[in-house]
Amino acid sequence: MDDPALGPADRHGSRPHIDARQAAARPTRILGVDPGLNITGYGVLDFTPAGPRLIEAGVIRGRSRGSLTRRLVEIHDGLAEAIAALRPNAMALEQLYSHYSRPKTAILMGHARGVICLAATKADVPVTHYAATQIKRILTGNGRAPKAQMQRAIQRELGLATAPEPADVADALAIALCHYHLAGKSDLTQTTR
Amino acid sequence: MDDPALGPADRHGSRPHIDARQAAARPTRILGVDPGLNITGYGVLDFTPAGPRLIEAGVIRGRSRGSLTRRLVEIHDGLAEAIAALRPNAMALEQLYSHYSRPKTAILMGHARGVICLAATKADVPVTHYAATQIKRILTGNGRAPKAQMQRAIQRELGLATAPEPADVADALAIALCHYHLAGKSDLTQTTR
Repeated sequence: MDDPALGPADRHGSRPHIDARQAAARPTRILGVDPGLNITGYGVLDFTPAGPRLIEAGVIRGRSRGSLTRRLVEIHDGLAEAIAALRPNAMALEQLYSHYSRPKTAILMGHARGVICLAATKADVPVTHYAATQIKRILTGNGRAPKAQMQRAIQRELGLATAPEPADVADALAIALCHYHLAGKSDLTQTTR
Repeated sequence: MDDPALGPADRHGSRPHIDARQAAARPTRILGVDPGLNITGYGVLDFTPAGPRLIEAGVIRGRSRGSLTRRLVEIHDGLAEAIAALRPNAMALEQLYSHYSRPKTAILMGHARGVICLAATKADVPVTHYAATQIKRILTGNGRAPKAQMQRAIQRELGLATAPEPADVADALAIALCHYHLAGKSDLTQTTR
């Protein structure tokens, strides 16, 4: 099995068919997802002239304790429903190699990410991956920002009275905001060309 | 994220609803799968009074190089088609923690396994996981059997003139044969009780 090039570099790769698809489907509504077998957080943002606007955020629970396969169905179906209802133009996930220190968790999370990517791709929603350090750097200027600093940044950017909870929702919104900043810039560049 | 108990122990767990389902759906046709993002091997065996009978074996290819998400769709749809056509009563996979030495590969394979488990569970096919060493021990008596010894065992058990190729198909058949031996015994016990 080879190692497909992923991450933002892939989005701006040299394959013409991908560039064409991205130009056609400009990300005006972004779905950020923080995958997990117990709780998958998601957050949906719109691009507006006034900045990012929070549309919806929540969690999809894998309720079938002890059954990996049932939980994968719950996660897949929950996300497919959210995509059908909210119709995002883009989905953003944390980069898949961010959890090396806990390989069992990373492999299990790979299963959840697999069905999440499947739900998005079946709905023609392009998927972009960002490294954890990149998300932190974009939101705070610090690739190693602590949790509290990230929460404040999310709160400020979205004009929220309190920090988003649970942590899975905050993480999903951080990923969506990262894509907002990076894809927004790249789209502006594409538009003005 | 917690760590769900998987493997054969899970199949024979104490949760009554699982025992009931398994008793109702006796594995008379077994689908063994060797997941990969490039090539996913599969093999289908029937229980017969004369022993295991090879029904079909082949590969599902992830053709979309460079796009993880497209390949996940290809693997999912390919396996869903095979399940719909061949209607197995059980699916067997290699245990998910067998590839610690190459964490990137293991995480990517987790994605493929996720969509494979989804396809099976959506079709009501129960999934069992076996450790690589268990598969080798069941087929050869040696948990560290080399590839050539495994190939000879598969050939002999299925009465094949030559070793199955490619390796992904051989691995899928080995997993199916492992399930044949272990689930077969457990089913006989259940039947005679």
